[in-house]
Amino acid sequence: MTARRSVPIRRRPFLRDGGVKALSPRERLEECLAAIGAGEADVQAFTALNITGARAAADRASERQRDGRRLSSIDGIILGIKDIIETADMPTGMGSPLYEGWQSRRDAASVVALREAGAIILGKTVTTEFAATVPGKTRNPWDLARTPGGSSSGSAAAVAAGFVEAALGTQVIGSTIRPASFCGCVGFKPTAGALNRGGSHDAFSQSCTGVIGACLEDVWQIAYEIAARAGGDPGFPGLIGPAAPPAARQPTQLVLLETAGWDAADPRARALLDEALARLVAAGIRIARRKSDAAVERAEVAIAQAFPVSSAINAWEGRWPLNTYRDRDADGLSGAMRERLTVAEGMTLADYRAALAQRAAIRETYARLAAPDTVCITLSASGPAPEGLGSTGNPAFAVPSSVLGAPTVTLPLFAVDGLPLGLQVLGFKDGDADVFAAAAWILTALGADRKS
Amino acid sequence: MTARRSVPIRRRPFLRDGGVKALSPRERLEECLAAIGAGEADVQAFTALNITGARAAADRASERQRDGRRLSSIDGIILGIKDIIETADMPTGMGSPLYEGWQSRRDAASVVALREAGAIILGKTVTTEFAATVPGKTRNPWDLARTPGGSSSGSAAAVAAGFVEAALGTQVIGSTIRPASFCGCVGFKPTAGALNRGGSHDAFSQSCTGVIGACLEDVWQIAYEIAARAGGDPGFPGLIGPAAPPAARQPTQLVLLETAGWDAADPRARALLDEALARLVAAGIRIARRKSDAAVERAEVAIAQAFPVSSAINAWEGRWPLNTYRDRDADGLSGAMRERLTVAEGMTLADYRAALAQRAAIRETYARLAAPDTVCITLSASGPAPEGLGSTGNPAFAVPSSVLGAPTVTLPLFAVDGLPLGLQVLGFKDGDADVFAAAAWILTALGADRKS
Repeated sequence: MTARRSVPIRRRPFLRDGGVKALSPRERLEECLAAIGAGEADVQAFTALNITGARAAADRASERQRDGRRLSSIDGIILGIKDIIETADMPTGMGSPLYEGWQSRRDAASVVALREAGAIILGKTVTTEFAATVPGKTRNPWDLARTPGGSSSGSAAAVAAGFVEAALGTQVIGSTIRPASFCGCVGFKPTAGALNRGGSHDAFSQSCTGVIGACLEDVWQIAYEIAARAGGDPGFPGLIGPAAPPAARQPTQLVLLETAGWDAADPRARALLDEALARLVAAGIRIARRKSDAAVERAEVAIAQAFPVSSAINAWEGRWPLNTYRDRDADGLSGAMRERLTVAEGMTLADYRAALAQRAAIRETYARLAAPDTVCITLSASGPAPEGLGSTGNPAFAVPSSVLGAPTVTLPLFAVDGLPLGLQVLGFKDGDADVFAAAAWILTALGADRKS
Repeated sequence: MTARRSVPIRRRPFLRDGGVKALSPRERLEECLAAIGAGEADVQAFTALNITGARAAADRASERQRDGRRLSSIDGIILGIKDIIETADMPTGMGSPLYEGWQSRRDAASVVALREAGAIILGKTVTTEFAATVPGKTRNPWDLARTPGGSSSGSAAAVAAGFVEAALGTQVIGSTIRPASFCGCVGFKPTAGALNRGGSHDAFSQSCTGVIGACLEDVWQIAYEIAARAGGDPGFPGLIGPAAPPAARQPTQLVLLETAGWDAADPRARALLDEALARLVAAGIRIARRKSDAAVERAEVAIAQAFPVSSAINAWEGRWPLNTYRDRDADGLSGAMRERLTVAEGMTLADYRAALAQRAAIRETYARLAAPDTVCITLSASGPAPEGLGSTGNPAFAVPSSVLGAPTVTLPLFAVDGLPLGLQVLGFKDGDADVFAAAAWILTALGADRKS
């Protein structure tokens, strides 16, 4: 085995370590730019950078900081935006040659909100083709020969390498939780509909804007500031929870979800989770699991269908606009995408309705697990990032939260062979704040020393 | 009073009068083009025409008709598309100078579906600014000094003048029912979510693609063919109902809804509705009304809030992308739109949640009226199209179906001063086919002689 090539991991927590007080936004931006200068040629996290615009925004944020006029608690934070989300000052390429250089000339709703909160938008981060399966150019900063995960590949890699302090992603299967796990970041996939997707090109019924960052506090606050200014998707109440990161709260019960990924998971990963559970039991928490609890068993059986049901729903919902792109320029789509479209065009509306009904049944079964001070727990991926850049990895552990529309976070608590792996904490519809409260407590209980 | 200036009213039913058998699609297209040649300078229904493309599509449809290879029962129908809905071959201007000439280079999901069904897309029809309140250039074919209604102004006017056989509109307040009523067309606003809005720039939670045509059969079939191929909005089951226009079926009970518009309605319009109700009673139908039925009274009280609740919801949901347009080029927005944005920016997420809760309560109260073979009935507008082109008219009768997300049709049954006025038949969530069955029966019962 040859030595790994990697770039320095420099996750940059913003709220937790009081970075605001220590340095000005402009100083912090220059640190990010230095990291980019040193590492971007290897990591390739970005499709575009607006350094001039970011410096100007950082200078304004620095002034506000100096004058005590900060616009929000994330004023001055330095962000990357997944390249399916529109930005007025940079192209939105969607990982597709069909959109290379495309300029919508407007910010997505989430980006407007973040700028209003004082955030500095530094660049657009690499996505797989239309946020689906065909990888972009990004490599995992922990090991350049490994995938960063997808589809929010550049967002997770950029956060891990300290190119930005946090980044927006999206998730319809595993696109936020998986790359965050592979890159050793905190990732948050909110309750479906919780963050306004206006101007984000992921119009699937279970897709959701996600946040990837260096600490729980940052990802909560970024999500909160978006919701406060732009709300959720039309017709949804938007992210529900407090204006500051939820305080740690010990859960009474954790439901261990094996998911469809358990049998194929890396045994070392399963052992790490088992060990963590033992420590949590020692701390006084009750663990419910499929072997001893019929309701958990029913939920496991239900979520075992997460991937096929999600795939059917996404296929139908993705017929448009893929069919228009195929008709315009079939060579502009990857072979995988054309195949997906062929599958989709073999579906009928009745097939889609059946998949929606299955999803509703899965959600109903899962919702019966809800109880006071109860969250679910599982791995965030079947192991560390696999070798190679041709696949973004197995999504089996990440897809349940997507099909459920449930809030989930991944915490960078485990390491296998020196590569990061996440512990996932899932909650119930609109219980995003409960997930954060439990996750914060688990982080402390399991110790920050296990973080890399 | 000076003589009215008008253009000939030439509504062109497609399925009902067997136009398919009599003429080829190309022959029918040439009739439409002749009507456009004679009348478009006065009516100004279009923002763009693709005559070459339409003739080529019509020739292909004519061949299919000749060879018995028609793609659907609407193969060869000639359509207009509201100019907030994307078309690959024509610009999508959204009634705004900010989008003048904008080419998305793709068809909206509904347009893809219609082309797959063999429909001929002839042109883009004038909309108010971003489908809101500021009128476009279109005039009412029945009286060029009057508004055609809005926001689907060009769609309704083009159908009335025989420029097209049917057209797509949208409705978030009164934008399909009102112009259809003012222009003497059949209009259909389906259950919210029933038709896929991909590529239609009306991302409001209660907005819906609508269909305007010359007969019930056409508008049903157009909606059906869209849903069969493109489904509804992501996560929705899509239009529910048969593959052919629902047969007429006598309702047992009609619920008369006065709506918030009753007191201000033209007394002649109210008298026409009263007279129609008397004839329906004579035909054996029971009429429930607020004075004698407590559930109806509760529903009336609830839907009286339709306009303010809709306005609050639309304001919040429209903050984006209006805020990006204002920041880019404030002069590109009308004063009315800038004011709307100012109001919206004064709202908080809590205000929006309160409006959503109000809407949910209105829907719940209305849903209690649902009963077998029961539909609701009211005017489609407070009177015929008002004089002047500066306003698209009072939406008080059209907005209840929008806030309710309920299916509704307007039938061109009444006339006041020789100007058309619609009778509206409203149903309950996913009961679109029931609305059509009842409307078809009512049409026959009240007599086609009253149609203009």
